[in-house]
Amino acid sequence: MKKRILLSVAYDGTGYAGYQAQKSGVPTIEGELNRALTELTGVPVEVIGASRTDAGVHACCNLAVFDTESRIPPDKFSYALNVRLPDRICVRTSLEVPADFHPRHCSTVKTYEYRIFNAPMPDPMRRLYTYYSRYRFDVEAMREAGRYLVGEHDFKSFCSMYTSAKTTVREILNVEVEEIPCGTRASLSQVCRMPREIVIRVSGRGFLYNMVRIIAGTLMEIGRGAKAPEEMPSILDALDRRAAGPTAPACGLTLVRYEIAEPGMEMVFE
Amino acid sequence: MKKRILLSVAYDGTGYAGYQAQKSGVPTIEGELNRALTELTGVPVEVIGASRTDAGVHACCNLAVFDTESRIPPDKFSYALNVRLPDRICVRTSLEVPADFHPRHCSTVKTYEYRIFNAPMPDPMRRLYTYYSRYRFDVEAMREAGRYLVGEHDFKSFCSMYTSAKTTVREILNVEVEEIPCGTRASLSQVCRMPREIVIRVSGRGFLYNMVRIIAGTLMEIGRGAKAPEEMPSILDALDRRAAGPTAPACGLTLVRYEIAEPGMEMVFE
Repeated sequence: MKKRILLSVAYDGTGYAGYQAQKSGVPTIEGELNRALTELTGVPVEVIGASRTDAGVHACCNLAVFDTESRIPPDKFSYALNVRLPDRICVRTSLEVPADFHPRHCSTVKTYEYRIFNAPMPDPMRRLYTYYSRYRFDVEAMREAGRYLVGEHDFKSFCSMYTSAKTTVREILNVEVEEIPCGTRASLSQVCRMPREIVIRVSGRGFLYNMVRIIAGTLMEIGRGAKAPEEMPSILDALDRRAAGPTAPACGLTLVRYEIAEPGMEMVFE
Repeated sequence: MKKRILLSVAYDGTGYAGYQAQKSGVPTIEGELNRALTELTGVPVEVIGASRTDAGVHACCNLAVFDTESRIPPDKFSYALNVRLPDRICVRTSLEVPADFHPRHCSTVKTYEYRIFNAPMPDPMRRLYTYYSRYRFDVEAMREAGRYLVGEHDFKSFCSMYTSAKTTVREILNVEVEEIPCGTRASLSQVCRMPREIVIRVSGRGFLYNMVRIIAGTLMEIGRGAKAPEEMPSILDALDRRAAGPTAPACGLTLVRYEIAEPGMEMVFE
């Protein structure tokens, strides 16, 4: 009996050429999942992935489905796969879903976090999962600017020019900018402000190519005063990638929450 | 004019053969500092390090001193070195100290944290800086056991048999066991307890070889019920390494605070 299995997958994207499997054989998360599933079940398996995160982007809960006739109980796939996966990838949950469930063709809400480590000096233990900056960011200005993005807009200014999307209209449900003080202190002669993480948290029903990283790059320009928060509407209206800020580096970005909001199939992965 | 410069150094110990420079040329933190300082000043420099952390152990604030006739202002060494160091190492602070200051022959209080990621499934983004365990730890029992260690004791049971220390008497000032809930949740069919980090924080005036890792390994045995907290005094009294628990893996350990408590020279590095 064929079954469709859904996997929730956490990964450290450092060193991977992104989520989506590629023919060239470069290491990808899907490529590793396909290899491990093929090893486990003894037949070739190709997963259908959900969010195609970029090279270097991390996730707590990206999704993938695959079909199998294996007799392994659905909830045991996670354990059986983890012993065959590198420690940079972990299947958090596995469960059976309806045969017609497709992770890209269903109603979802995804939340991404962009983390900035903001301190007088970098922290080697945060370098892989945050973007380091020494600028004095005005977090309130970043919050104010973020509010203009909420709602349904044409996000063409916040989309890589290399997109193949048919429409650049998307709906953003929430933009938060949180400040988290970090334990360490600069000491002595270096009387500096306290180190902190600035977390830009964006939730939406769908995102364009590089969209969250361009939002983060633009909010950072606003945070350091290069642009004013009130310029956000005109950046949106420009419908031109050059109006927005730079694409923030991949290492700061993590997919942190995946909500499936189909009638009769409501699930949250974090 | 010769000056003695003190560096406070943060590092990700992953992949390094420890702090102390080795003749064999394997990568060490001191080896990298010596190379960068020699490049910077144009003359061979060898730092005198403070805590000789093991291979794979991390630090926010290990110390090193060196003598130089360079005209670089003392507080600028940090910036000049960081451009010559890999991003796994960061000099947080540099400052001039008296010519007779020796980081191992002075009164200090050091604090180490041993971090356990305790959850139903591992987290790839925590794998380098925590030890993963799925056991249900009794944190209260670990706290109770930790209290027996506070004070001056012969810690022979908590010292690697490969030590060269003249005495195994040391003073521990504080042992804390903190529980930090983690954002992510196991979902659905996997109705599991919430993921958490358990942080074992140990402060003392000096530590034996592997001492904090053996304390962590012993507290974990107590936390999972293999030993009772009340057995701690007899483990100490045994003066035998075999009485204590295993040496916990290096990746969970970080030197987080270094206090110099010399009369007239009081400084804290975090």
